Amino acid sequence: MKFTTSKSTLAHAIGTVQKAVSPRSPLPILSGVLFKAHGDQLTVTGSDTELTIQCTVNVETEREGSIVLPIKYIADLVRYLPDVPIQFHTLPESTSTTIIYGVSQINIHGFEPEQYPRLPAVEKGASLSLAQDVLKDMLRQVLFAVSNDETRPIFTGVLMQVEEGQLRLVATDTYRLAVRRFQLEREPEQQINVVIPGKTLNEVARLIGGDEEEITIVCGENHVFFLTGTLKIASRLIAGQFPPYEQVIPREFVTRARLATREILEATERASLLVRDGHPAVQFSLQEDGCVVSVQTQAGWIREEVSGAVEGEPLEIWFNARYMGESLRALGSEELSLELTGPLSAAVLRPAGEENYLSLLLPAKPPKE
Amino acid sequence: MKFTTSKSTLAHAIGTVQKAVSPRSPLPILSGVLFKAHGDQLTVTGSDTELTIQCTVNVETEREGSIVLPIKYIADLVRYLPDVPIQFHTLPESTSTTIIYGVSQINIHGFEPEQYPRLPAVEKGASLSLAQDVLKDMLRQVLFAVSNDETRPIFTGVLMQVEEGQLRLVATDTYRLAVRRFQLEREPEQQINVVIPGKTLNEVARLIGGDEEEITIVCGENHVFFLTGTLKIASRLIAGQFPPYEQVIPREFVTRARLATREILEATERASLLVRDGHPAVQFSLQEDGCVVSVQTQAGWIREEVSGAVEGEPLEIWFNARYMGESLRALGSEELSLELTGPLSAAVLRPAGEENYLSLLLPAKPPKE
Repeated sequence: MKFTTSKSTLAHAIGTVQKAVSPRSPLPILSGVLFKAHGDQLTVTGSDTELTIQCTVNVETEREGSIVLPIKYIADLVRYLPDVPIQFHTLPESTSTTIIYGVSQINIHGFEPEQYPRLPAVEKGASLSLAQDVLKDMLRQVLFAVSNDETRPIFTGVLMQVEEGQLRLVATDTYRLAVRRFQLEREPEQQINVVIPGKTLNEVARLIGGDEEEITIVCGENHVFFLTGTLKIASRLIAGQFPPYEQVIPREFVTRARLATREILEATERASLLVRDGHPAVQFSLQEDGCVVSVQTQAGWIREEVSGAVEGEPLEIWFNARYMGESLRALGSEELSLELTGPLSAAVLRPAGEENYLSLLLPAKPPKE
Repeated sequence: MKFTTSKSTLAHAIGTVQKAVSPRSPLPILSGVLFKAHGDQLTVTGSDTELTIQCTVNVETEREGSIVLPIKYIADLVRYLPDVPIQFHTLPESTSTTIIYGVSQINIHGFEPEQYPRLPAVEKGASLSLAQDVLKDMLRQVLFAVSNDETRPIFTGVLMQVEEGQLRLVATDTYRLAVRRFQLEREPEQQINVVIPGKTLNEVARLIGGDEEEITIVCGENHVFFLTGTLKIASRLIAGQFPPYEQVIPREFVTRARLATREILEATERASLLVRDGHPAVQFSLQEDGCVVSVQTQAGWIREEVSGAVEGEPLEIWFNARYMGESLRALGSEELSLELTGPLSAAVLRPAGEENYLSLLLPAKPPKE
C-alpha cells in the first residue's frame, strides 16, 4: 500500500471513525483502524462490532493495499504531523506502515488487515432519505431522553417509525419522553419500526450536518445503515418491543403556560445550583401572570419570576432541575407551551405553536420539610 | 452591606481569587470568599493561609459591610446570572446575602466575616518594580523546572535574587535547571534572596500581564507580596537554603548546535508519542549538518532530521522526551543553541544569541537493548 495525502484529510478521516474504536478492546485488532487504499480513495474504518463507522476520502494512490494501525498511536501522531504531503507506505506482506513527511519518517506496527472482522454489508430493506441538518436537529431533540441503564436495553435506544410518510423518533428513560415527527417528501415503500442504540445516534448526530447533502437510512433485519457520499455508519438494532407511548401523553390539561424558553431555562439552571448536593427537585408555581421558580435548601434559597401568559388554574408542581433543564434546552424555540394536568401528573412541553415535537416530564417529589 | 455591580465585574473578581480557595478546606470558612464593601470599592479575598489573593473592583456601595460566601455556590452562580445590574444585600448581623437581579433573587448562606483569618499585612522589606509582562515572561521560562515533590520543599520553589540591580529567577527539580536574568531599571536598596512557592508564582503568572502597569514585589521576613493597582497576592516564603546552582552550569562544550526551535520541538513531540508507554528516552544525534531525533520502541520507530549548524564533535545523547519538550517550549525564541560536553553530561539550552536565559537538562539513560 502506498498513498499520499494531507494532514487535514487524514485527521478528518481518523476523527470521524475514532469514536467507534475502543483503544483497550479485548480483541486487539479492534483497537486499530483499518486503512484501505483502492483506486484513488482511502477508506478508513473503525468498529467495536456493534457500531461501525467508515469514512472515504480522496488520496493519490500509488499501490493499493490495506493495513490496521492502532488508534492509540495513529490518532495523536496525525495531530502532531507537519502540514506537508504525507505518504503512507506499507511493504507487501508487512504489518507495519512507514509514514513519510519531508525528510523524516515514523514507522508504526499494526495488524494484518485479513484479521479485521467482516463488516455487515448493507442489507436490502426499507429505506428513507432526508436532509442531514433535519435529521441532526431531530436527533438532538430526542437523544437527551435516552436511558443509560443497560439492564433495560430497550430504553437505551430510540424508536424510529415510518408510517404514512411520517418519520417519528421517540426516546424515553421512563422519567421523560421525547417525540419528534417529520413529514417525509418521498414516502418509503415499506413501513419502518426499529429501535436504534442511542450511542449510534449520538455519533450520527455528531458526524452529519453542515452540508446540503441528504442522508439515506436503510433498515435491515438486524442492522441499520446511515449512508452519505463519504460516510457509512452501520449499527446493530436493539431487539424487543418499544413500550406503547402514545397512551401516556395527556390529551387535556388544567393549566397551560406560554413562557420565554430562555428565561425559564436560566431560572432553572440557577435553581439547580442550590439543589446539586441534595434533593434535586425545584418548585414551579404557575400563577396568573407567569411562573415562579423557587426552592429552599441548606445552601440558601432562590425565587425567580418568569412572566408569561397562563390559562387555567394556578398550580404548584416540582420537577427534577436537571431533567427540566435538558427538556427546555431540547425545545429549540424562543417560546414554549407548558401543559399541566395536576401536581402529580406528567407535564407536556412543546415549542410554542409547533405540532411536530413534544416532550413529557414526570413531576418530582417535593423535598421533606 | 449593600452594593450594586455588574456580572462581569463580579466574575472577574471571583475568578481572580478562586485558585487560592479550597472548596473542601478543613477550616470551613476558608472554603469561602470574603466580600468587603468599603467606600465605592469591593475587595474580594480568597486564601488557604499560605497563599492569599485579593482583588479590588469599583462598585456602587449603599452600605458598607462584609460577608464570607462559599466559593462552591458563588462562583457558579455568578456565571449563571443574567447580564443586568446585580445587587448584593446583607442585613446587619446576618450571615446570608441576598443577590437581587431584575425581579428575581437568590439567597446564599455564608459565614461571619469576623471569623475570617487575618491576612498578613504588607511588611517592610526590600522591594522592586518591573513591567507585568516582563515578569510574566520570566516566570513562564522557569516554572516548568519546579519540582512537585513535597518531600523536598526547597525544590518546589523558585529562587528570586536581586544583586547589583539584576533580578534572577532560578528553578530546578534536580533533573533540569532554568535561570532567567533581567537588569532592573531602578536598583532596589537592599539585596533580595528568597525562595517563593511555585504554586504562588503560577498564580502570579496567570493573573498579571495584559496591561502596561508595573507590578511591585515586596519581600518581608516570612512573606512575599505582589502588588498592582487592583491586585494583592501574599504568600509565605519557603525556608531553607537554595542549592548552589552556578557551579553545575558547564562553562565549556565539545559540541554546539544552532537549530530551529520549532523543528526540534515538533520532532521531540512526535518521538514522545512512541515512548509514552515505556522508557521515556529519545536519542539526539548531533552530526555535521544538524540533529537526528530517533527512537525505536515496541510501537514502532521514528527518525527525524533537523538541519542546523553544528560545531565540534559528533555526539549521541539521550534525553527524557517530555523534559526536552518542556525545555524547548520555555525558550521562546525561533532559534536555539544546544551546548553539550559529552553523552553523560548536562546539556545547556539557550535562545540563540541571548545571554539572559539558559536551562540545563540532564541526559537520560538509553533504553536497554
